[in-house]
Amino acid sequence: MRTKTPKLAGRILDAAARQFARQRFHEVRMDDIAAEAEVSKGTLYSYFRDKEELYLALLARGSEGMVRALEDAVVHADDARSKLVALIDAVLVYFDGEPHLFDLIQAVEVLQHQDQEFPWQAARDVAMRLVQEVFEDGRRRGDFVVRDAELTALLLFGGLRSVIRFGSRPRPRLLAKRIVDSVLDGAAI
Amino acid sequence: MRTKTPKLAGRILDAAARQFARQRFHEVRMDDIAAEAEVSKGTLYSYFRDKEELYLALLARGSEGMVRALEDAVVHADDARSKLVALIDAVLVYFDGEPHLFDLIQAVEVLQHQDQEFPWQAARDVAMRLVQEVFEDGRRRGDFVVRDAELTALLLFGGLRSVIRFGSRPRPRLLAKRIVDSVLDGAAI
Repeated sequence: MRTKTPKLAGRILDAAARQFARQRFHEVRMDDIAAEAEVSKGTLYSYFRDKEELYLALLARGSEGMVRALEDAVVHADDARSKLVALIDAVLVYFDGEPHLFDLIQAVEVLQHQDQEFPWQAARDVAMRLVQEVFEDGRRRGDFVVRDAELTALLLFGGLRSVIRFGSRPRPRLLAKRIVDSVLDGAAI
Repeated sequence: MRTKTPKLAGRILDAAARQFARQRFHEVRMDDIAAEAEVSKGTLYSYFRDKEELYLALLARGSEGMVRALEDAVVHADDARSKLVALIDAVLVYFDGEPHLFDLIQAVEVLQHQDQEFPWQAARDVAMRLVQEVFEDGRRRGDFVVRDAELTALLLFGGLRSVIRFGSRPRPRLLAKRIVDSVLDGAAI
């Protein structure tokens, strides 16, 4: 029996991601994924026991990538407002670069049992924590003071989800900055 | 054979809604719905051919109710800002009063084919149109001018979705007004 390699696991996950992007989630079959990855069914099943294990691994990989992108974003920005723009931009770029991920998260939320651990939760928690830290940073430096941090974070992430899903493409220029300006300073003149 | 009545159809839909609220969407069986509605399986199938027809009817009923609530909300408010608050409040109250509806919309989005008509779309379209009319009304009366109506509507509805789904309960006082103030005037002081 061949040793399992991270490289082949990655190839299978890439193939699965393309399949999930192409068909409705519940229509994707392990057979299609094996064919797409150009591996035998035996090899596929030695890496991932079933479709559930596969999509949980895909979500875990997506979540790790998003966490890295978010942590990178805040390190490379200076003031609090630029950090917020960098965070929003990182989310936009990440989802636009992984077009299957958004649908996969939604599908797994619907199909999974509520008592199961949700592998996207880590990315959500990190995003929420970083935004709260940026709000606190903005207050400390006197850049801006967010009145209601909890409501604002909900409005910001929910709004961002809507923009990713329904917003026009190609993305307008400086979209992340426009979102942050709108949320912090208001949509009205 | 008995004549079909809207009253019995409504009772079956109510039972289905309770079942969808209690179990993950794909686990609900027609048998459970017949038992919950206290009708025979024959009666159930004479009203709704399969689970798909049932959930499409549930979504259509939900969509009609939401459209009525939205249209009612703008009629009874005076200035543009109050109309916006009334619209947001109507959405919050409607979803909180129909706890199965939110999950059902998400489940059907995942399970349905993209070329099928989505029966919640009517509610979305009406909500979007009414908000754009209120923005236009605000501008005409000099109450407020929304710079980027499309982005603002996306942020508003996406944010609202997040509040409905993840926001604290019981809902904070004046939540709709706080959302509108935050979106129009900004989250920062």
